Amino acid sequence: MAMAGLADGSVRKRVVILGGGFGGIHAALGLAKMAVDVTVVDRKNHHTFQPLLYQIALAVLSPADIAQPIRSILREHKNMDVLMDEAIGFDVEQRRVKLKSGAELEYDFLVVATGSTHSYFGKDEWAKLAPGLKTIEDALEIRRRVLLAFELAERQMLETGHHPALNFVIIGGGPTGVELAGAISDISRLYMRKDFRHINPSQSCVVIIEGSPTILGAYPQDLQEAAMRQLKELGVQVRTGQHVTDVQPGYVIAAGERIDSVCTLWAAGVRASPLGKLLGLETDKKGSVFVNEHLNPPDHPEIYIVGDLAHFVQDGKQVPGVAQPAMQMGDYVAKRIGKLIGQDRGSDGPLRDKGFRYFDKGDMATIGRKAAVAKIEWPFKAHWSGFPAWLTWLVVHIFFLIGFRNRLSVFRQWAWTYLTFSDGARLITGSQELPGWEVQDGVYGMRGEITTRPLDLGSPKSN
Amino acid sequence: MAMAGLADGSVRKRVVILGGGFGGIHAALGLAKMAVDVTVVDRKNHHTFQPLLYQIALAVLSPADIAQPIRSILREHKNMDVLMDEAIGFDVEQRRVKLKSGAELEYDFLVVATGSTHSYFGKDEWAKLAPGLKTIEDALEIRRRVLLAFELAERQMLETGHHPALNFVIIGGGPTGVELAGAISDISRLYMRKDFRHINPSQSCVVIIEGSPTILGAYPQDLQEAAMRQLKELGVQVRTGQHVTDVQPGYVIAAGERIDSVCTLWAAGVRASPLGKLLGLETDKKGSVFVNEHLNPPDHPEIYIVGDLAHFVQDGKQVPGVAQPAMQMGDYVAKRIGKLIGQDRGSDGPLRDKGFRYFDKGDMATIGRKAAVAKIEWPFKAHWSGFPAWLTWLVVHIFFLIGFRNRLSVFRQWAWTYLTFSDGARLITGSQELPGWEVQDGVYGMRGEITTRPLDLGSPKSN
Repeated sequence: MAMAGLADGSVRKRVVILGGGFGGIHAALGLAKMAVDVTVVDRKNHHTFQPLLYQIALAVLSPADIAQPIRSILREHKNMDVLMDEAIGFDVEQRRVKLKSGAELEYDFLVVATGSTHSYFGKDEWAKLAPGLKTIEDALEIRRRVLLAFELAERQMLETGHHPALNFVIIGGGPTGVELAGAISDISRLYMRKDFRHINPSQSCVVIIEGSPTILGAYPQDLQEAAMRQLKELGVQVRTGQHVTDVQPGYVIAAGERIDSVCTLWAAGVRASPLGKLLGLETDKKGSVFVNEHLNPPDHPEIYIVGDLAHFVQDGKQVPGVAQPAMQMGDYVAKRIGKLIGQDRGSDGPLRDKGFRYFDKGDMATIGRKAAVAKIEWPFKAHWSGFPAWLTWLVVHIFFLIGFRNRLSVFRQWAWTYLTFSDGARLITGSQELPGWEVQDGVYGMRGEITTRPLDLGSPKSN
Repeated sequence: MAMAGLADGSVRKRVVILGGGFGGIHAALGLAKMAVDVTVVDRKNHHTFQPLLYQIALAVLSPADIAQPIRSILREHKNMDVLMDEAIGFDVEQRRVKLKSGAELEYDFLVVATGSTHSYFGKDEWAKLAPGLKTIEDALEIRRRVLLAFELAERQMLETGHHPALNFVIIGGGPTGVELAGAISDISRLYMRKDFRHINPSQSCVVIIEGSPTILGAYPQDLQEAAMRQLKELGVQVRTGQHVTDVQPGYVIAAGERIDSVCTLWAAGVRASPLGKLLGLETDKKGSVFVNEHLNPPDHPEIYIVGDLAHFVQDGKQVPGVAQPAMQMGDYVAKRIGKLIGQDRGSDGPLRDKGFRYFDKGDMATIGRKAAVAKIEWPFKAHWSGFPAWLTWLVVHIFFLIGFRNRLSVFRQWAWTYLTFSDGARLITGSQELPGWEVQDGVYGMRGEITTRPLDLGSPKSN
């Protein structure tokens, strides 16, 4: 079915952008002033500021603090259409996208920026037991589970006089795993402690299980070591070089050992959106599409792949699937399309474009409320850790990354919430069930051979 | 199973409070400084400021703005236990409450403040088609549906060139129905309009269907008429004296007529919590418990019923099930228990207590962003409508009703969000399905004989 409304007989080029993440939004904003008609398609109605998702998960911020309707972001630009829908197929020859709702969109340029999702390495049954963190919904589910684990332990303590060890197991030691671990540790010790009478949340133990030999694999060794030190200070137990072989309600098996868990979270694998394969393009094993210097897949100069979904190699290394490259790719594609249109109209002579180049300003991960590691590449090179890195993280996230909202308003609201750990965000909504917790002997609690511990029995179980 | 931790051999009286709404929280706070051990039990971990729930539903505020963990509210008071659980049975003779998790609580005084929920008048299958508004989850579901209706209409317009009439049908013309209607009308005209290219949200039509002859039945006639006028100015269609006989995906039948509906909401009946019946007490047909002047059911001076669940008659009239009486009842019960304890210890002589008396300060309902009706009883008597009533509503809700949070912080955050209608809150989370919308002829849209309308066809369908 043809698109009504777009096929208006004009010679304006039609750009379809799939995905409203960093890549898609930057491409759209870059095209806003150009003589093209743009349709942005996303399953969600909102763009999410993913680097702060873990703060939703840990009840520091509210969803509205870090997400914004895509319509609102693009509201001022009359050449933009926003469609809450999902691409499910392509006719690459005819340049058409088939949407889930049944409609088809025609395009002259297609920008595919649908990112990545969790990969459970073929163990999809683990998804319900160990949720990952990619969307607002994911974050609220993690929040629900973490907060509920404390509530259920308090209840079990009141009922039986003991409660399961408050182990929070995080599978994966990349930035997300480290940030979740630091934040859980912090809220347990600093804030939850005051709220409970019978359990002692500060005795909770956060465990990171990482398959490779180090955490934060993308960081230099000194920062990995700094992160290890800072995590240790927070009481986080890090197990590297251990592969998780089973995830069950209430426990995890890693390196042959059973680790009890009141709440298990997934921060390990990601896989690219399936659209690369749906387009019939060559992908790496993660599902990312191999692209050339202009971010085109082979033989398709009209298709651009940006963000996580692009397998782009620069100086012999693959550019990582994080926010900065995605934004820069989006910017680049908008400029590239602008140049191509200029060329089409004969205004510009031969197209001059050396291709995309990722400008790495650095990388950061927070570890709790006062520490972080920062690999700074610009405006100078440095490796920072501890409080200076955390301050840098704060400033960068407020002033550089939150680009298209009223920064002052976000800053005020966020700083307030962050500095006070305001109570409102620690809401549990939705179901009151947790995997591994059920009625046994007439009382609801964690099932199986759980490790229970009298209230005043010292430090966390160290396995 | 007996409660560990409470049966410590002391002579302190044990108070169990069921429900963390206005009644339960006020009772708990009133008991905070007394020599009693208090356990507050609620299914949710948070207290909700219900008078502003409709603003969550219409994406003005975020859940964290109007809800607060019960633990946090009571954190400072060492004699308070909070349990996220649910009463499912009683042994009134032995003074024990049985909880869903399997535990039992012993009490010397029991305060039952579990409020009310929606009643679909026996048509429980309507619940999925027309959600009501009692909890944060309800509010987020209503938000999802209202915002999604616009998104789906935009999509259908793009795909087919027409879209269903944007009728939002609200069943029930009490304060909740009126507030929802005003808010939907306002956001359609003022805010959504700018976000959509193909549909015109300002052409949406809000319909209130009320079975009785007037809306706002609890208000005096002049204010009912003022509300009618103000709703009419907002373009809201009010159908009084019409009973809804069927609710179907995509439409409603009222007074024998079919009214198409892209989104149907329920603001009609409520029924009391089932705990009155579980306690074996005499209730009215709504399920509320008949109580005496001390808020005790007959023959149970150790049981107090507060809030919606109490059927309390004063000056020949039943006290309404709204926030103010619930708070005052909670306060009263705390004082009453304090006196009884004093009497038990022989410090106070004969108990002097004339019984509970509801002090009615008035009642208010907003109608959109700039109008309201207010029946003021204190500190003077007056009937206000329009902007003065709205301003009064604003001041009262900020400064009087939000009692136990940092008022300044709430005020700032709320005023900011309210005055700017900040974008972040208009997030759609969860499923992308709506009753009545499905694939037909290969395209997703509203099913059945829907009334479609070309984009530029003037004012809303007036039936």
